[in-house]
Amino acid sequence: MTTPHPRLSINQATIKYTTVAQAIDVVSAAGIQSIGLWREQVQEAGLNESVKMIADSGLRYSTHCRGGWFTAEPGPARQAALNDNRVAIDETAALAAAGAAGSKAALVIVVGGLPEGSRDIVGARERVRDAVATLAPHAEANGVQLALEPLHPMYCSDRAVLSTLDQALDIAADFAPEVVGVTVDTFHLWWDPDVFDKVARAGREGRIASYQVCDWKTPLAADVLLSRHYPGDGVIDFAAFTKAVEATGYTGDVEVELLSQEIWDTDPAEAVRRTIDGFERAVAPFLSNTPVS
Amino acid sequence: MTTPHPRLSINQATIKYTTVAQAIDVVSAAGIQSIGLWREQVQEAGLNESVKMIADSGLRYSTHCRGGWFTAEPGPARQAALNDNRVAIDETAALAAAGAAGSKAALVIVVGGLPEGSRDIVGARERVRDAVATLAPHAEANGVQLALEPLHPMYCSDRAVLSTLDQALDIAADFAPEVVGVTVDTFHLWWDPDVFDKVARAGREGRIASYQVCDWKTPLAADVLLSRHYPGDGVIDFAAFTKAVEATGYTGDVEVELLSQEIWDTDPAEAVRRTIDGFERAVAPFLSNTPVS
Repeated sequence: MTTPHPRLSINQATIKYTTVAQAIDVVSAAGIQSIGLWREQVQEAGLNESVKMIADSGLRYSTHCRGGWFTAEPGPARQAALNDNRVAIDETAALAAAGAAGSKAALVIVVGGLPEGSRDIVGARERVRDAVATLAPHAEANGVQLALEPLHPMYCSDRAVLSTLDQALDIAADFAPEVVGVTVDTFHLWWDPDVFDKVARAGREGRIASYQVCDWKTPLAADVLLSRHYPGDGVIDFAAFTKAVEATGYTGDVEVELLSQEIWDTDPAEAVRRTIDGFERAVAPFLSNTPVS
Repeated sequence: MTTPHPRLSINQATIKYTTVAQAIDVVSAAGIQSIGLWREQVQEAGLNESVKMIADSGLRYSTHCRGGWFTAEPGPARQAALNDNRVAIDETAALAAAGAAGSKAALVIVVGGLPEGSRDIVGARERVRDAVATLAPHAEANGVQLALEPLHPMYCSDRAVLSTLDQALDIAADFAPEVVGVTVDTFHLWWDPDVFDKVARAGREGRIASYQVCDWKTPLAADVLLSRHYPGDGVIDFAAFTKAVEATGYTGDVEVELLSQEIWDTDPAEAVRRTIDGFERAVAPFLSNTPVS
C-alpha cells in the first residue's frame, strides 16, 4: 500500500456517505494525516462530539465545508443565510482548534448563484461583497479565515457567481489575509488562461487558504455537479498547477474533494485508496515534504 | 405575427435538420433578412448550388459555420485540418459574395480542444495561434475574416481551448482586424465578470465579426453542448450585454444559434417563430435599427 503524502487531506465530500466517525476511521486507517468535514455530517454527529472525535484522532483539520449561499436580496432569507454562516464560523473555530498542529481554521465559502428569477449578476456579485463584509468581524473574532472559492463558470447561475480567482481576490482585498482568503481548486480554475498569474497573486497577497486537487474529464456527467475525477484520471496538468502553487510558498494541506456518484458508490476505504494512488502519481511529485504550517 | 427585427439573423444550427433550401425558405418566409449556414449542409447541397440559392433569396449572409479544430500536434491530422479550413474560407467568400448588401464574409472559428490524451493546454493554445497565422494569408487573399470564437470554459477540453474574449483578442492582435476578428456569443461569455470591458476592447480594436445571442439556464442539458435557450428564456441580462455591444458601434447582424435537441425537435418554422418572439422581447429593444453595414 502506498504511504500517503504527508500533506494529503481527504475532504469528506469524497466519501460523502460516511458519518464523521466513519470518515475519521477510514482516513486514519489509510495513514492520512488530515481531514476536512462537511457541516451536514458534523451537525448530525453533534458539534461537541465531532470536536472530540477530531481531537482524539490526532488528524489535522484542513477546511470546514461550507458556508456561503448568501446572494439573496436583503430580507429574511438573506438574514437566515448570514446567521447560518455565523454558526459555520463557530463550527470551524471549534473543529480546527481540536485538530493536530498545522490545522487551519478555514471555512470554504461557495457564494451561491443568481436568486430565482433574477438576471442581475452584477447585483448578486455586489451582495457577495456585502455578505463577506458583514461576516468578516465574526470570522476575525473567532480566528477563522473565510476561504472564498471561485467555482467553474458552468456553475455561475446556480452555485457561485464567483467564477475567477481575481474576482475572489478583489473581494478579499478589503480584508486582512487571515480573515478572508481564497480556495484554489484545480477543477474550477484549470481552464483559465491566466490562472498561474492569478495563483501567484493569491500567494503574494497571502490569501491561499486551501489548495484542492481534482481532475476534469469529458464528457461531463449528466449532472455536472458530479463530474469530478481522481487526480491523474483527466486532463489537468497537475505538474504545472502544483508547481505554481508551491512557488507561492504555500506549504499547507492539499485537499481532495471529489463529487461523483461513481466514487460515492465505491466503498469509502477503496475510494480513499484510489485517491492516495492518484495523488501519489499526479500531485505528490511536485509537492515539498515540508511540515504543514 | 411579429415582424422580425431587421438585424436578426438565423444561424442554421437553430434549425439543424433543414437542408440549405429549406433553411432559406423558412427564414425568408418569416420575413427575416439574414442567415448563416453550416458547412455540412452547404456541402450536401453543393457549394455552387448553395451560392445560387443565397443569391436568389435576397438574404444577407451573416456568418459561415465553421472552421477551426486545429489544435492537433504537427502531422497529417493538423495538415488536413488546415487544408479543410482553406476550403471553408473559400466557401465563406463565395457565399458572402452572393448575399445581399451588408453580408459579411466571416468564418466562425471553433478552435478545438485538447488532443486525445494530452494535458498540454498551453501548447494547444500556442498551436491555435500558429494555425491562425498559417491561415491568415489565405483569408486575407479571399477577403474573409476569421471570427475566433471563445467558447464557455466547460468546453475547454473537448471543443475550444479559447475560453475568453481577451484570449481571442490577444491572438487577433497580430493581424489586421478585417482578417482576424472575434465572435461574441452571450451564452459563452455572460459569466465573465470583465466581459463588458472585453467587449469594449473588441470594439475599440475593430474585431467584432459577429454578435450572437443565446440564453443560459440551469440545470444544464445532460449533453452540455445542447443546453441553449431562446433569448429571454434564461438568466442572461441581454439588455446590459446588447447595450455593451451597441456601445462599440457594432451595427451588424445579430445571430441566433441554438443547439438544443428540444428546439431541433420543433418544426423549423415554429422554432424560427419562437426565435423571433424571444429576440423581439429580450434583444431588439436594445438594438438600433440602423441599416446593417
